[in-house]
Amino acid sequence: MKTSNVEVICPMITPFDGEGKPSRENLKVFLDDMKEFGINKIFPLGSNGLFNLMTLETKKSFLKMIQEEASNFEVLVGVGSQNTEEAREMAKYAEDLGFDKIVLQPTYYNKAEQSWIIRHFEAVSEVFSGKFYIYNIPQFTGSRVEIDTMKSLVENIGRIEGIKDSSGDIRFFNEVAANFSDSLKVFQGQDDLLLQALSIGAKGGVCGTTNINPLVTDVYKYFVDGNITMATKTQRIFNQFFKMVNEYPFPSMVYAAFYRKHNIKGKLPDPITTIPRIV
Amino acid sequence: MKTSNVEVICPMITPFDGEGKPSRENLKVFLDDMKEFGINKIFPLGSNGLFNLMTLETKKSFLKMIQEEASNFEVLVGVGSQNTEEAREMAKYAEDLGFDKIVLQPTYYNKAEQSWIIRHFEAVSEVFSGKFYIYNIPQFTGSRVEIDTMKSLVENIGRIEGIKDSSGDIRFFNEVAANFSDSLKVFQGQDDLLLQALSIGAKGGVCGTTNINPLVTDVYKYFVDGNITMATKTQRIFNQFFKMVNEYPFPSMVYAAFYRKHNIKGKLPDPITTIPRIV
Amino acid sequence: MKTSNVEVICPMITPFDGEGKPSRENLKVFLDDMKEFGINKIFPLGSNGLFNLMTLETKKSFLKMIQEEASNFEVLVGVGSQNTEEAREMAKYAEDLGFDKIVLQPTYYNKAEQSWIIRHFEAVSEVFSGKFYIYNIPQFTGSRVEIDTMKSLVENIGRIEGIKDSSGDIRFFNEVAANFSDSLKVFQGQDDLLLQALSIGAKGGVCGTTNINPLVTDVYKYFVDGNITMATKTQRIFNQFFKMVNEYPFPSMVYAAFYRKHNIKGKLPDPITTIPRIV
Amino acid sequence: MKTSNVEVICPMITPFDGEGKPSRENLKVFLDDMKEFGINKIFPLGSNGLFNLMTLETKKSFLKMIQEEASNFEVLVGVGSQNTEEAREMAKYAEDLGFDKIVLQPTYYNKAEQSWIIRHFEAVSEVFSGKFYIYNIPQFTGSRVEIDTMKSLVENIGRIEGIKDSSGDIRFFNEVAANFSDSLKVFQGQDDLLLQALSIGAKGGVCGTTNINPLVTDVYKYFVDGNITMATKTQRIFNQFFKMVNEYPFPSMVYAAFYRKHNIKGKLPDPITTIPRIV
Repeated sequence: MKTSNVEVICPMITPFDGEGKPSRENLKVFLDDMKEFGINKIFPLGSNGLFNLMTLETKKSFLKMIQEEASNFEVLVGVGSQNTEEAREMAKYAEDLGFDKIVLQPTYYNKAEQSWIIRHFEAVSEVFSGKFYIYNIPQFTGSRVEIDTMKSLVENIGRIEGIKDSSGDIRFFNEVAANFSDSLKVFQGQDDLLLQALSIGAKGGVCGTTNINPLVTDVYKYFVDGNITMATKTQRIFNQFFKMVNEYPFPSMVYAAFYRKHNIKGKLPDPITTIPRIV
Repeated sequence: MKTSNVEVICPMITPFDGEGKPSRENLKVFLDDMKEFGINKIFPLGSNGLFNLMTLETKKSFLKMIQEEASNFEVLVGVGSQNTEEAREMAKYAEDLGFDKIVLQPTYYNKAEQSWIIRHFEAVSEVFSGKFYIYNIPQFTGSRVEIDTMKSLVENIGRIEGIKDSSGDIRFFNEVAANFSDSLKVFQGQDDLLLQALSIGAKGGVCGTTNINPLVTDVYKYFVDGNITMATKTQRIFNQFFKMVNEYPFPSMVYAAFYRKHNIKGKLPDPITTIPRIV
Repeated sequence: MKTSNVEVICPMITPFDGEGKPSRENLKVFLDDMKEFGINKIFPLGSNGLFNLMTLETKKSFLKMIQEEASNFEVLVGVGSQNTEEAREMAKYAEDLGFDKIVLQPTYYNKAEQSWIIRHFEAVSEVFSGKFYIYNIPQFTGSRVEIDTMKSLVENIGRIEGIKDSSGDIRFFNEVAANFSDSLKVFQGQDDLLLQALSIGAKGGVCGTTNINPLVTDVYKYFVDGNITMATKTQRIFNQFFKMVNEYPFPSMVYAAFYRKHNIKGKLPDPITTIPRIV
Repeated sequence: MKTSNVEVICPMITPFDGEGKPSRENLKVFLDDMKEFGINKIFPLGSNGLFNLMTLETKKSFLKMIQEEASNFEVLVGVGSQNTEEAREMAKYAEDLGFDKIVLQPTYYNKAEQSWIIRHFEAVSEVFSGKFYIYNIPQFTGSRVEIDTMKSLVENIGRIEGIKDSSGDIRFFNEVAANFSDSLKVFQGQDDLLLQALSIGAKGGVCGTTNINPLVTDVYKYFVDGNITMATKTQRIFNQFFKMVNEYPFPSMVYAAFYRKHNIKGKLPDPITTIPRIV
């Protein structure tokens, strides 16, 4: 396949060490994998990164590591938080470190109203001058970013570069694509729906399985090369693999597979209890 | 486009007259539309046909009309019913009239267990010797036909020709496609998801909007001709139309549009209250 | 306990014989049980009665049996149907047999709009001159009868005697009670919520387990006698029993228990596959 | 009414000042209200307290205020957090300040497995020697604390004093009551379900509206005094008030009413946009 710029972003794990702390050494191993997989876009401190299980200080120290080690990558920094104050703090820190793209979802626990989502983005935009990605993941935040809210953000913030929809709701995704794929980068956040997202106009995918396996990038490549038959075939084979990965509580499996592949002793932060053995 | 055999089936309305009774005259008008639309496969007495609002006698008399008027069409007869006894009666009547394909969904009101679904199909297969289509529409029947149940039906009935999944759950559809699209005809029952269904291996669609408009058949044609760009574009334009159709209570709008187009005075059976005016 | 008029209605099974047909002999056995249980109100041809699995003719013949055998009972006749035409037919037949109370739920399969529900009741009220009970069971019909719709029915039909809410949604029940319990008989249709319904103002319950066991009537009696402690205790003991009953697909267990208790060979209509053995 | 010990706990607001910071002055005003309302049990830093919108430092400083100002109250300290590390930190701080009761819910954002919930409680129990309340609020945490998990916590932690179920699922509540109300204090966390919770054996309620109005405590008092008629009447009147309160996004209304009553200028933390005016 001739595709060079693969629009598949890795929503990366935080490569914790055996004590549950981010490890520079493991990060290097991870980034080597990415190069090997042909992936040059990473999204640290997202849901796969378990940002919510890390303290503000730990998140900052890990972001510093990314800055120092991942200079060859396009980095979309996850600054999402349960409240605006901490999201601003992270966004400011990302700006200070020189990053120019952040990913932001609604606050969570008590469910955000649409007006709260707008206020959240505005408040963060006051301290970050780069580009924004809107991150829709209602199964975790409790609130969907509605189409009208997206429109309002695009209009008022003015620096929205893309949208990551991880809702898994294909009809909602199709609405996002219909409204924004001509002007913004619309990404599918569910690996098993990549081909169907591309077929309706998505730019690419933010695919968790790329933490451990590049297969889903072939779906992208075949599609943009116009080889639908092979894209279909690959997505279907991939989906069997994806099903296996999802038999374990999110996001244990990608961690387990990464650690096992490299024979690393890693530990996930409390309260995650176990890393499943891979058969 | 060169596609000749369009695998888009019309889940047809019952062309009621001004008294709420099936009308032969209106049926002819409808079938002329189908010819004009390039559609040669029809599925009478399904959900769009409002079979559930018709008595057994009325359903039979309408099926007789179909037999007499639609001899140039491939006909998939809907024999679904709230209970097995009536489904058998309809299937037997279809057989007597010479039809060789029926569509069957689970019984409804009290929710069917998977074992009930199997018993239902078995009981109907005892009185009908032709081919079966499994019809999954859990939003109406209250029960999903699970993959394992489909497998069991395929194995034990032996005459399953296809599956119509109208669940609107793309992940479930993808599982259906993964399991059965190599050996059976898998049809998408939601018009707006046709392209995405085709892209994962579906044979075609059973598309309600073809009652009034052939646009969705272009999605099919572009796709099988390998013109993904136009297929995407067409599906997206179509989806705006589809959204409008769905702003009215199912299935009022297709009836309203049909009546209006042909300036026919029609009436839906009680308790459906109104046929919306089309703007 | 001194309570004489127990406001617990039995939503009765149809006592099918070994061929799956309503049996006069089994009906008599059933009615003897009711006398023994102290229950003098019955609701035939409801969800427990499996009306949806019976043809119109069978339902009529069973209602005739009820008329002939159950003259000592207050009878609320279930006339619910998937369409208005058949509900009218049943209501007319009930009127002809001299019954003066019917129970009616929305039509089902394709989901009824609120305006359809109103039309449905109006159409049935044209052929039945007695009292109506509004039956809310959205898990089976697909549509909830909203409070405003109930208000409209009460106002326009003028002969609403009561409401049976079987939704299991206690907050909705509480709204029904708040709006109607001062002027109408509001019944809880879920046995395990009887005490909590009474405590907010319900008149009584329509309790499926009374087909096989009168325990839940004690909850009613203790409550109206002002013995809350015993009402609580009884409801809690009852709920353990109720949980067991509900481990089987509705409504198999009440049939199984009835048949077993009386050593009757009974068969449920297709597609219900099995009657579970009681341990 | 003669009831002296009212088992109604106030899940208190954090009395923010005009800058969105906890205010000692406003806290005093709040505690005076509680005395006037006859409420001597408070639960700071819960969902009504908007703990999730406060940084660790702010939560600590507010807890210090509580320790200094609320010595006449029974205090159940909310230590819930999105991760175990921060919950431990809060629990340790509560212990250092001399508190002896904490309330803990599952971690959130990515959904906690039941084994994660057990690990979470164990880890917190290592740093806190007092009593625990299990807090079930799946609509915010994404995970329900299942009955078996509760049993395991009761057995293994050994210091569980009570359970607050705010799920609003009355059947789940009834199971909690059936399993634990004889040995633990089971509290209903939804004000409108208080009477129905008491009627099945609950100890009392954790009622958000007590932040602004003591009416719901009358439901409790009438019930324990054996005056069911007045308890019913009061709960029904209360429910109309509760409905109004819930027309605004949680928990805006209780803040707005508190501020307005005392003519205080208060501000909720970002991203909450507005405090609704009370008509």
